[in-house]
Amino acid sequence: MAKQEKRDFVQHITPRSENFSQWYTDVVTQTDLMDYTPVRGCMALKPYGNRIWELIRDEMDTRFRETGHENVSMPMLIPESLLLKEAEHVEGFAPEVAWVTQGGNEVLQERLAIRPTSETMFCTMFAKWVQSWRDLPLLYNQWCSVMRWEKTTRPFLRTAEFWWQEGHTVHATAEEAQAETLQMLEIYREVCEDALAVPVFAGQKSDKEKFAGARATYSVEAMMQDGKALQAATSHNFGTNFSEPFEIQYLDKDGALKFCHETSWGASTRLIGAIIMAHGDERGLRLPPRVAPLHAVILPIAAHKGNVMEVCENAFAQLKKAGVRVKLDDRDNVSPGWKFNEWELKGVPLRLEIGPRDVANSVATYMRRDTLEKGTLPLGTLAEGVQGLLQEIQDSLLAQARAFMQEKTADVFTMEELAQQVDGGYARAMWCGQRACEDKIKDETGATSRNMPFDQTPFAEHCVCCGEKAQYVMYFAKSY
Amino acid sequence: MAKQEKRDFVQHITPRSENFSQWYTDVVTQTDLMDYTPVRGCMALKPYGNRIWELIRDEMDTRFRETGHENVSMPMLIPESLLLKEAEHVEGFAPEVAWVTQGGNEVLQERLAIRPTSETMFCTMFAKWVQSWRDLPLLYNQWCSVMRWEKTTRPFLRTAEFWWQEGHTVHATAEEAQAETLQMLEIYREVCEDALAVPVFAGQKSDKEKFAGARATYSVEAMMQDGKALQAATSHNFGTNFSEPFEIQYLDKDGALKFCHETSWGASTRLIGAIIMAHGDERGLRLPPRVAPLHAVILPIAAHKGNVMEVCENAFAQLKKAGVRVKLDDRDNVSPGWKFNEWELKGVPLRLEIGPRDVANSVATYMRRDTLEKGTLPLGTLAEGVQGLLQEIQDSLLAQARAFMQEKTADVFTMEELAQQVDGGYARAMWCGQRACEDKIKDETGATSRNMPFDQTPFAEHCVCCGEKAQYVMYFAKSY
Repeated sequence: MAKQEKRDFVQHITPRSENFSQWYTDVVTQTDLMDYTPVRGCMALKPYGNRIWELIRDEMDTRFRETGHENVSMPMLIPESLLLKEAEHVEGFAPEVAWVTQGGNEVLQERLAIRPTSETMFCTMFAKWVQSWRDLPLLYNQWCSVMRWEKTTRPFLRTAEFWWQEGHTVHATAEEAQAETLQMLEIYREVCEDALAVPVFAGQKSDKEKFAGARATYSVEAMMQDGKALQAATSHNFGTNFSEPFEIQYLDKDGALKFCHETSWGASTRLIGAIIMAHGDERGLRLPPRVAPLHAVILPIAAHKGNVMEVCENAFAQLKKAGVRVKLDDRDNVSPGWKFNEWELKGVPLRLEIGPRDVANSVATYMRRDTLEKGTLPLGTLAEGVQGLLQEIQDSLLAQARAFMQEKTADVFTMEELAQQVDGGYARAMWCGQRACEDKIKDETGATSRNMPFDQTPFAEHCVCCGEKAQYVMYFAKSY
Repeated sequence: MAKQEKRDFVQHITPRSENFSQWYTDVVTQTDLMDYTPVRGCMALKPYGNRIWELIRDEMDTRFRETGHENVSMPMLIPESLLLKEAEHVEGFAPEVAWVTQGGNEVLQERLAIRPTSETMFCTMFAKWVQSWRDLPLLYNQWCSVMRWEKTTRPFLRTAEFWWQEGHTVHATAEEAQAETLQMLEIYREVCEDALAVPVFAGQKSDKEKFAGARATYSVEAMMQDGKALQAATSHNFGTNFSEPFEIQYLDKDGALKFCHETSWGASTRLIGAIIMAHGDERGLRLPPRVAPLHAVILPIAAHKGNVMEVCENAFAQLKKAGVRVKLDDRDNVSPGWKFNEWELKGVPLRLEIGPRDVANSVATYMRRDTLEKGTLPLGTLAEGVQGLLQEIQDSLLAQARAFMQEKTADVFTMEELAQQVDGGYARAMWCGQRACEDKIKDETGATSRNMPFDQTPFAEHCVCCGEKAQYVMYFAKSY
């Protein structure tokens, strides 16, 4: 029986403290977020996981619109000749492209790539759409899935197909492109911290780690509970790197034909992995209310007694009307204890129990998923009470994650300190800026450069690795 | 210069009365709905067209949720072996599949189809997800794009890649599957009529015209202004046609293992084509307010005089606050007359002009795009006035289209009458139910069977084609 199997599953989550990686896999598969499919490395987003993605999408999409961006939909296929136009870009992506070579019974004359990202398609269309300075800026975004033929995959963190948004913008000047790049980075920071309750370090990537074809790449980097980094989103300034080969030019006010400056920026279903690994605990998920498919679940206790069910239904109606995403779990084939386990596993922020004693006292008994604290809320003002608690839970998850991130981040001055620090945390180090040192740090400690914070106030004179004069403050960490 | 080019474009729409097909192409390309791309048969949805699709999506998605459906996201690739499992299905779709044969540098052992539709993938996953009667029903939907390698394509109406939703549901009984099939058909009817202002005939497809693999297909059929039919959406009852080869079984309460009953239903970006061809006129688009990216555009007249701009900005703020999708067109490089043309072409339901005289009278002068009627609205209650007019426009577009559809639909009793009637309209005819007559009607008149209305009250005894005993009332029409 399906139900019996699920009950066993709940008991079989590997302890997080014992094996973080296995804990992650157990949580992901046992909470109905996704499932594996017959296509290598491609997952199916089940309703619970898909809804989280829709809520993240809405948080981002609202901010994109407010800053003047418009959504478009581009073809999923890209002719090989377009992919070849920008040399660094094709070098970066060609090895992991899925190729369409046949349409119906016909063998295609030119291979078509399933988009691994859409710079080349956007640029091709921008060359048609931009003529005059009056056409600028173009501030476009699309929601879609992309495909990268990865060798090793993990649910949400690295999958062959993943869902994302990719913004692509065209500007008249370098200054505007840079302002756009930083604006979108700030929006990502805000969505991560305010909606996902995941604190991040925002900064610039090293040349080694930047996007294939970008002049400069910026990222927001989150910390998972094993102290490893997860790149949550990136924002790229292309300068004229793409507009030159794609001939995206505009006639300026002064009558001169000029190359446009471009940006792109993206965030993906990877963010769901970030939520799981930043907040989850031994009991399973802990979802931040802003992106939780369910805010609260109402559990009738001794449902057959008195007017328990009626009071539960009224509470449900009151909460639903107030915009709370609520479910009344009135199943009679599983015990309350089993329901407790299931909804804790699925990370619903608030559990509301209503039994005969609660009815007598005109209250609902709640349990907060973030702290596991229990208390009561008066039924008469249940909606206000629930909304207040949801805000507290949202804030407390962010505060917990922020405290953890601060605790696990430290300045380091030697390679020994760096190696020790990145064993479960971020190391902030002074760095000479040379690729050789980045490579050596990776080889010796397993850590990669994450990003250079905007506050570049030096705290030491010498590169942590080679001892030469330091140029940059850089975060190093092991990463997903 | 881009602007000059666009100005010429506006003057170059082919008269609708002269050449409907060319008028359609002109309108589609000159209103920034879409553009052609370097990939054969694949279009790019530009912001204006993409926004219409998002608004249609929201209308449908809300109704899907209200009826208990949940969104999921499935892989875009389908292994060939899955596609082969249902014989009729593969026969219907294999000739138009785009095949992935290489991943990175590796030649794949099994070809992967870019989904032309996702029945086979959903069924594969359903077989994992369904065990007990307690798991049923599963009411899933996904928003995505699909690919069909069509030989001839037309924007929105038939493209290789198109955007759509596909619902897939699993039920315990035949009765529930049939109820679901009809429920979704009714939702499509409601969206077409209430949101798109496009009236439809709802009914059942003939065996010849049903979906590859379905037991029964139902459709809603719209009428374009050339009198041709456009299939706006379909809803299929599969019975156990897919659950048997895919082994989707559930353990029933009585302890017996039973095959599930399934449905699927879909509607696509084709609906944008329906809106264009059902409502457009010699000046361009006429968008129904419910799915119009812009409800109203405010045009300052003699903007430099008095406080015209200030009044315009106040009007803009008032409307925006009330939830009206409004734009203040304050460009100073084109004339008001040119703006009139552009916004009429783009089908914005309401134009609001505010000049010195309007300011003096505390009114805005409006023009309704549906009737081209002009009038004034007091500025003090502009939001209420605009919302009232938008509702009138929504209603009047539906009424106009419905009157046209009724006028162009007639009962026919002979092949001559049928041939005459389908030259710019729908023929309702009695039909024997034989494929041979359907084929003959197609050969002789170019019309196909559209659907059989739910009201099957016979109005003649003999088949319009063979003269044998009639079995069904059937709509025939030429179609897109």
